[in-house]
Amino acid sequence: MSSSAFPLALNTGTTPNLDLREAVEVTAEAGLTHIGPWRHLLEGAGGAETAAKIIAGAGLKASTLCRGGFLTATEPEARAAALESNRAAIREAATIGTDSLIMVVGGLPAAAHVLGGEGDRGDKDIAAARARVGDGLADLVPYAQEHGVRLVLEPLHPMYAADRAVLSTLGQALDMAAGLPADAVAVVVDTFHVYWDPQVREQIARAGAEGRLASYQVCDFNLPIAADALKSRGMMGDGYIDFASLSTWTAQAGYTGPVEVEIFNQEVNDQDPRLTLATMKERYVQLVLPHLESARAGAPAETAAGV
Amino acid sequence: MSSSAFPLALNTGTTPNLDLREAVEVTAEAGLTHIGPWRHLLEGAGGAETAAKIIAGAGLKASTLCRGGFLTATEPEARAAALESNRAAIREAATIGTDSLIMVVGGLPAAAHVLGGEGDRGDKDIAAARARVGDGLADLVPYAQEHGVRLVLEPLHPMYAADRAVLSTLGQALDMAAGLPADAVAVVVDTFHVYWDPQVREQIARAGAEGRLASYQVCDFNLPIAADALKSRGMMGDGYIDFASLSTWTAQAGYTGPVEVEIFNQEVNDQDPRLTLATMKERYVQLVLPHLESARAGAPAETAAGV
Repeated sequence: MSSSAFPLALNTGTTPNLDLREAVEVTAEAGLTHIGPWRHLLEGAGGAETAAKIIAGAGLKASTLCRGGFLTATEPEARAAALESNRAAIREAATIGTDSLIMVVGGLPAAAHVLGGEGDRGDKDIAAARARVGDGLADLVPYAQEHGVRLVLEPLHPMYAADRAVLSTLGQALDMAAGLPADAVAVVVDTFHVYWDPQVREQIARAGAEGRLASYQVCDFNLPIAADALKSRGMMGDGYIDFASLSTWTAQAGYTGPVEVEIFNQEVNDQDPRLTLATMKERYVQLVLPHLESARAGAPAETAAGV
Repeated sequence: MSSSAFPLALNTGTTPNLDLREAVEVTAEAGLTHIGPWRHLLEGAGGAETAAKIIAGAGLKASTLCRGGFLTATEPEARAAALESNRAAIREAATIGTDSLIMVVGGLPAAAHVLGGEGDRGDKDIAAARARVGDGLADLVPYAQEHGVRLVLEPLHPMYAADRAVLSTLGQALDMAAGLPADAVAVVVDTFHVYWDPQVREQIARAGAEGRLASYQVCDFNLPIAADALKSRGMMGDGYIDFASLSTWTAQAGYTGPVEVEIFNQEVNDQDPRLTLATMKERYVQLVLPHLESARAGAPAETAAGV
């Protein structure tokens, strides 16, 4: 077992008031080795090449790039623009040195206005929207492969099915990926989004078996749901998620990579980022890492005995 | 085809400011034939027998009784109390003349405090909570059968998985019902809760094939999610649900019973109930009923051709 398994990583969604340089600084100060930036931070830093230098200059590695996707538009121009934006994101991921581009696939045309886009207010056909995501992914696969980047599908909690992602479960994401090569299309397990899923254990195992388990992101599910529903994510331990089970299953599926913490939560987002990083580390060591490590240690024996 | 298929029904959750007598009155005035009351309205009316007279006296029938469930407690006393409450609900359902007791199965012990209960703040084991639901249902089956009442499992939207229902999908509900007789355990399709589910079409068909499709409830999924997330339900047409598809699949599965409208929404709940009933009827005739009727008319032909 390598001591470099399961490095904790800051997803910059957790520290939205910091620019890339500041986020890198607090991450390195906290002794972390990985950071998962959002694209607008790259732009704010003057582009992906400068961003790559900032990240590497602090001795960090990029765990993921957030985010591509939004492939559900119906109009040809909007679809072409979405594909072009995804190609740019693929280049940026390669430039900052991560092979994982997180993909939030997009919602219904009827709900596009919720995020400031244009759509067809009458188009509520969720099956058709999913089919367009599949088509868009297939279009992007060769470009992703050329750049050594995987399109990492993120099933989002069903509360975001209408406006953000018509992809709601790991099983559905793996079904969508099934016809596409595993070096180009993978999935991320985000505890907030999948903890409720009765099939989550089997589907995490399937993701591992299919070589598509590209990222593990942890945060809690808080109640009550925040007035801005997007901000219901919480620090691990503050909500209702069973991190022991999910972490065990993720490690048993063979995952050993970075573990990102991505928390949209007004209180967490507004507080001193150094406090956030300190709490993240503490909760990670208490609630997540022990289960990853013991499952990894036990996995071969269990596999031999049970499968 | 009988003209009595698919009668529209008021679920009294839509008119929370009315007592049973008032709710019955506006329902009958609107020309509806069915009402689905909540239990506290029966209590407010002086008990189930008086409630039965009020409902029948206005020429109405009870489509369902809402609700039993909450079977996830761990402590023996709390479990015994929950079972006793469900037995009372079964008797009440039989007394008001419905064979459908809607079951909201309960959330995690860790979140029991959210609804004012007691639980174990550390118990976040969702798989164990589900197993306790299965045990509780098995306990209740003989009593339900004696009274000619079915326990109608309601998978709730995953946004309520922590505090209200560890049962989140139709497939999961049917899996839970699988070992129990179909005359005692069934499921309800509530559009708000299931519209996002990638397996919803197949699982509605399965519910019909297994003889467990006991109720169809319609309302929309509004955005943004309300500050009180429970109140994000909307009048059909105001949100993002594709009623054409869901209604078609429900009728194709053989359902011909009442269609309840259950809307928790501050604006709808506060307005004149007569306006609510009028809008319900209009939207039902526009958006739901045509698809139920044409699927019912077309179902044999499609079955012959396609299956």
